[in-house]
Amino acid sequence: MDKIRVHIEPNSGSNRFFKIDKAALEQDRFATDPILERIDISFGGVNDQGAEGLSYAEILLCGRFDASNLPERAPKLKWIQSIFAGVESLIPQVAENVILTNTSGIHANKAGEYAMGAILSINGSVPQFIQAQHRLEWLPIYTSSVADKTVLILGTGKLARAIARHARHFGMRAVGVSTTGQLQPGFDECHPSGALDELLPCADFLVMALPETPATKNIVGRRQLDRLPRHAGLINIGRASALDVRALSDKLAADELAGAYLDVFEQDPLPTTSELWTTPRLVISPHCALDDGPNYIKLSLGIFLENLKRYMSGSTLQNVVDLKRGY
Amino acid sequence: MDKIRVHIEPNSGSNRFFKIDKAALEQDRFATDPILERIDISFGGVNDQGAEGLSYAEILLCGRFDASNLPERAPKLKWIQSIFAGVESLIPQVAENVILTNTSGIHANKAGEYAMGAILSINGSVPQFIQAQHRLEWLPIYTSSVADKTVLILGTGKLARAIARHARHFGMRAVGVSTTGQLQPGFDECHPSGALDELLPCADFLVMALPETPATKNIVGRRQLDRLPRHAGLINIGRASALDVRALSDKLAADELAGAYLDVFEQDPLPTTSELWTTPRLVISPHCALDDGPNYIKLSLGIFLENLKRYMSGSTLQNVVDLKRGY
Repeated sequence: MDKIRVHIEPNSGSNRFFKIDKAALEQDRFATDPILERIDISFGGVNDQGAEGLSYAEILLCGRFDASNLPERAPKLKWIQSIFAGVESLIPQVAENVILTNTSGIHANKAGEYAMGAILSINGSVPQFIQAQHRLEWLPIYTSSVADKTVLILGTGKLARAIARHARHFGMRAVGVSTTGQLQPGFDECHPSGALDELLPCADFLVMALPETPATKNIVGRRQLDRLPRHAGLINIGRASALDVRALSDKLAADELAGAYLDVFEQDPLPTTSELWTTPRLVISPHCALDDGPNYIKLSLGIFLENLKRYMSGSTLQNVVDLKRGY
Repeated sequence: MDKIRVHIEPNSGSNRFFKIDKAALEQDRFATDPILERIDISFGGVNDQGAEGLSYAEILLCGRFDASNLPERAPKLKWIQSIFAGVESLIPQVAENVILTNTSGIHANKAGEYAMGAILSINGSVPQFIQAQHRLEWLPIYTSSVADKTVLILGTGKLARAIARHARHFGMRAVGVSTTGQLQPGFDECHPSGALDELLPCADFLVMALPETPATKNIVGRRQLDRLPRHAGLINIGRASALDVRALSDKLAADELAGAYLDVFEQDPLPTTSELWTTPRLVISPHCALDDGPNYIKLSLGIFLENLKRYMSGSTLQNVVDLKRGY
């Protein structure tokens, strides 16, 4: 039996935590799995050898790389596994007969922790305390508990469900919004996106956990922010394009929102000229809050290995991206 | 049947949320309870009438007030209900035959939320992000999840148990330390205070939720902080005297601890000359994090009303303070 050709684009330009090079593979349980005997691995990204491996590859495992003209450069490709959850930039280079899978789910633990931490922080006025601390000012604020308050979550996928589960642990009401509005595990209620305007005035916290698609673009603009109560907090851990950050910054500066945590930005890194850096009660995390660095490759290879076994046995892969929907 | 004389020292000097004056009583369900027909209420703190009410009182409900010579000024007193949980300053003025009760428990919800929020924040490097943000610096840090990490909690009372419960929800290991070391609900393990030195090196987070007693004074000093791992975070929501903050500040400045959240300070308000204001990765909340302002009097009166019914029927009161132990 011929070995299946697997090509790896190792995400060379990235932080050490996110490289899928030989060293990373050798440290993982992947390296001792019997399935390795049934595949031939080539690596790209280092020198011209990459181009040849890609041209023969049936399977591509990749991080960020130059995917231009991918269908021509990799004519035998049947399946692409990305180590990222958001794959909107890769989709235009995926031929129609090629399956694309992502790592949706591996960010859920940290997403839940970050968003719940942000909710507790904003509810407890911690962003105010931090600003007062910089002025050496003692400014007590006595807030009520999060219990019985409402978190409105845009998105009902794996990130959103993790957040809903934590929120309900703290006695909160978790309301989800998705295209269909179908009730998902962990939520008290789910509604279709058409109901968003009606739901906003009841939100004590708005958490955005949306993929980038034409439908989510700017879904929370100035008009939507105006419908939130003044005491509300906002957290964005999904794609940046879903939120009008200029409007958010204005609302915070005008004291018309309690606080915000942003992990995602249209320009990444955020330029030093951005007004967001100094917007009051806005906490910026530099697009890293959802990535479990020390375990990132282990978690990604776990999904790849499971999918590889399914691929070999002809079963349906997990985390298949709907190329039309975009996630 | 003679009515029982209840005297209220209404905590006049405090924030509006913590006053137990006539207006506060009238807004509460206390105002419509049939038990009111069996008591006579006098109020202190306004003018000289107070002294007379106190001299006849069998029961005293109080906030912060001048308790000097209380046994002489209130010779008929049998029971004092404080609206605070920490009563160490009142204890020297409580005669031996007088029962003192506190509001231990009403701070548990917010304590759990604050401490869990602080753990998630420190684990996610949020204190680092906040400092980088002030320098307009994009500085991603990719941390692992809190799951499987250990929180060491000093104290195993109601605050500590709320924290342990949240920590375990997030997949953490909750280890408690108390005088006896008896296992309490919500914890994975509990140990006697003598084991503290051995436990510290295993703590990813150290949460202090201790009352002020001779035994807790400076229980976490420089030597104890030196035994914590460099990546550990510290949170103090109990009494300030249990922690050597100068040593904590030194450790944070030397990058030998990840971060800290402090809600309590030996001098309150914290003087502007304190080095804590500008200690790196230290978040200061001005002694308000545990107080649910909008519900404080409702929660306090709930405990008082329940105790009043028990008192009338000769049952044992709840939240009785051990005057020797100090809490």
